[in-house]
Amino acid sequence: MEKIRIGIVGYGNIGRGVEQAIARNEDMELKAVFTRRDPAAVTVKTESAQVKHFDEMLSMKNEIDVMVLCGGSATDLPVIGPEVAANFNTIDSFDTHAKIPEYFANVDKAAKEGGNVSIISVGWDPGMFSLNRLYAESILVQGSTYTFWGKGVSQGHSDAIRRIKGVKNAIQYTVPMDEAVERVRTGSEPQLTTKDKHLRECYVVAEEGADKAAIEQEIKTMPNYFDEYVTTVTFITEEELKAEHSKMPHGGFVIRSGETGTEGSRHVIEYSLKLDSNPEFTASVLVAYARAAYRLSKAGESGARSVFEIAPALLSMKTPEQLRKEIL
Amino acid sequence: MEKIRIGIVGYGNIGRGVEQAIARNEDMELKAVFTRRDPAAVTVKTESAQVKHFDEMLSMKNEIDVMVLCGGSATDLPVIGPEVAANFNTIDSFDTHAKIPEYFANVDKAAKEGGNVSIISVGWDPGMFSLNRLYAESILVQGSTYTFWGKGVSQGHSDAIRRIKGVKNAIQYTVPMDEAVERVRTGSEPQLTTKDKHLRECYVVAEEGADKAAIEQEIKTMPNYFDEYVTTVTFITEEELKAEHSKMPHGGFVIRSGETGTEGSRHVIEYSLKLDSNPEFTASVLVAYARAAYRLSKAGESGARSVFEIAPALLSMKTPEQLRKEIL
Repeated sequence: MEKIRIGIVGYGNIGRGVEQAIARNEDMELKAVFTRRDPAAVTVKTESAQVKHFDEMLSMKNEIDVMVLCGGSATDLPVIGPEVAANFNTIDSFDTHAKIPEYFANVDKAAKEGGNVSIISVGWDPGMFSLNRLYAESILVQGSTYTFWGKGVSQGHSDAIRRIKGVKNAIQYTVPMDEAVERVRTGSEPQLTTKDKHLRECYVVAEEGADKAAIEQEIKTMPNYFDEYVTTVTFITEEELKAEHSKMPHGGFVIRSGETGTEGSRHVIEYSLKLDSNPEFTASVLVAYARAAYRLSKAGESGARSVFEIAPALLSMKTPEQLRKEIL
Repeated sequence: MEKIRIGIVGYGNIGRGVEQAIARNEDMELKAVFTRRDPAAVTVKTESAQVKHFDEMLSMKNEIDVMVLCGGSATDLPVIGPEVAANFNTIDSFDTHAKIPEYFANVDKAAKEGGNVSIISVGWDPGMFSLNRLYAESILVQGSTYTFWGKGVSQGHSDAIRRIKGVKNAIQYTVPMDEAVERVRTGSEPQLTTKDKHLRECYVVAEEGADKAAIEQEIKTMPNYFDEYVTTVTFITEEELKAEHSKMPHGGFVIRSGETGTEGSRHVIEYSLKLDSNPEFTASVLVAYARAAYRLSKAGESGARSVFEIAPALLSMKTPEQLRKEIL
C-alpha cells in the first residue's frame, strides 16, 4: 500500500500527538517534522522521520502529501496557514472563533493558487462539536443548542492566574455544572447564564509569605476571566500540582433539544467527549482529516474547507463499499 | 426564495412525519403525496398539496425536486427504490442492514441512468448512528464501538407476541441495560453478550380465559426473538395498553472508547438520542437529507449515496459562510 506521507509543522503537545496518531494509522507515515528551533536539538520518536528547519520546507515539496500545522492560533497560524497552503495540502486546528472567516479566506486564496487542499479548524471544538451542532440543528430546526466544556484545563485562565503577584504556579479547570447539564437533558430548553453553565476551579501555588486572601480575591474578581463565574480557589504545594495536575484531560457536551410535529413531540440529541489527553485526541482528529485532504487533492480539488464540507467517508481507512456493508 | 418541492411516497407514520417536518423547514414545500390507496380516501394536512395515485407519479416529473420514499424495507423499497430513482431524486430509510449493498447497487444503477441523486438508508439507525460509528472509529482507530437501542418499541417483536395463541394485543420495548451502558462509558471496553446489553419488556393483553402462564412461557422461550434475552412479561388491559403505550418513543446510544498515544490515554465518545416520536424524528432527518439531494442534483451529480458520502454542510439551510461564522 502506498502510504500517505505526512509532515508535522511545530513539535509541541499537538505535534507529538500527531506523530503518535500517525503510528496508529497504517496507511500513513511521518516523513518530517519542521521546527523553528535548531533541528539538531529536536529529537523525534519516529526513526525514519527527518527533522528540518521551518525554512527548509520547500525542499520536501515532492515528498510530503499533507502538512499538519500544529502552531497556535493567536500569532502562528494566521501567518503560516496561508504560507504553507501555497505549497502543500494542510490541516490545522485554528480556533479563534471570531477570526475564522478571515483566516478561511486567506488560506483559501493561497491554497487555490497553489492547487492544494487545506482543511481548517479541525479538532473537537472547533471540529467534532461544530459538526454535532450542525447535524443537530439541521434535523431539529426549532430548538436550542447548548455546549458545555470540561472538566478540563483552560490554558488562558491558568495563565491569567499565574500573572497575579504572589502566585508561583496555577492551573484552572473549567467544570460543567451538573445541574445545568441535567436541566438541558430534560429537553426543557432552559435559559442559562454564563454562571449557570460552568464552574471555575483554581489550584494555586503561592510564593512563600504571599497574601493568600488577597490572591483569592484578585482571582475571583478578575473581569472577563472569573468575575461572572462561581470560582473556587484551592492553595496547594508545587509538589501537589505536579503530582495531581500535570495531565491534560478535557471533554464536554453538545446538546440540542427541539420539537417536531404538531403535537409537541420533544427530542434530545447529545454528543459528549471524555478525554484523557486533549492534545492526543485533537491530534487523532487532525490525522483523520489529513486522509480526507489527501483524497480530495488526489481528486483534483483545491482551496480551503472546514469540517462542514468534508464527506464523512473521506475520513475512514475503509472503502465506501466496506463502510456501507459494515457500519451503515 | 425558490422552494425545494417535495413529494411523499407512502402516507403512513413516516410519511405524515415528513409532511410535518416540511412545514418546519421554510425552504421546502410539499407538492404531492402518492399512495397505493384510493387517493380520494386519503386526506393530507397540507392544503396546497395534491394526493395522487402511485401510478400517476410521472405526470409530476417537472414539479417535484425530491421524492421521499416512506415505504417499508422488507418488500416495498426494494421495488420502488430503483423504480422512483429512475425518474426523481429520492431519499429513503432502507434499514435491512444485510441487504444494503444490493439495494445500493440497484438504486445507483437506476439513479445514474435517470440522472438523479438518491440517498439511501437515511434516519437514525441506519443514519445518524452510522455516522457516529464512522466518525468515532476514524478518530479512535484502536477501540471498540457499542450501539444500544431504546427504550423504544420494536415492531417486529411486538408482532411476534401478537401471533401467540391467546394474545389479543401486545407491545414490546427494547430497553438498554443501565449497568452495561455504564460499564461501556468507563472506557473499559467490556465484552458484552446480547443478554448483557438489552432487556425486553413485554406488555400483553390476553384474551379472556387464556392461559397467561403458558403465554409468558411461550414468549420467554421464543427462539431468536426472546430466548437470548432477559424478558419481562406484564399482563395489562386493552385500556391500559391504549392509555399508556400508544406513543412511539425511542432512542439509544452509540459509544466508542479507545486508546491514543504511547502511554495509554483513553477516550470515550458518546452520541445519544432521546426521542418522543421515532417516526417524526426519522422524518426530520429524511427532510434534511432531501435538501442535500436537491443541492447535489443541481450541481450535476447523479447516482446513489449513503449518509457517509454527504458533506454535512449540504444539510443546513445556512450557507457555508454562515456556518463557518456562526457554529464552527
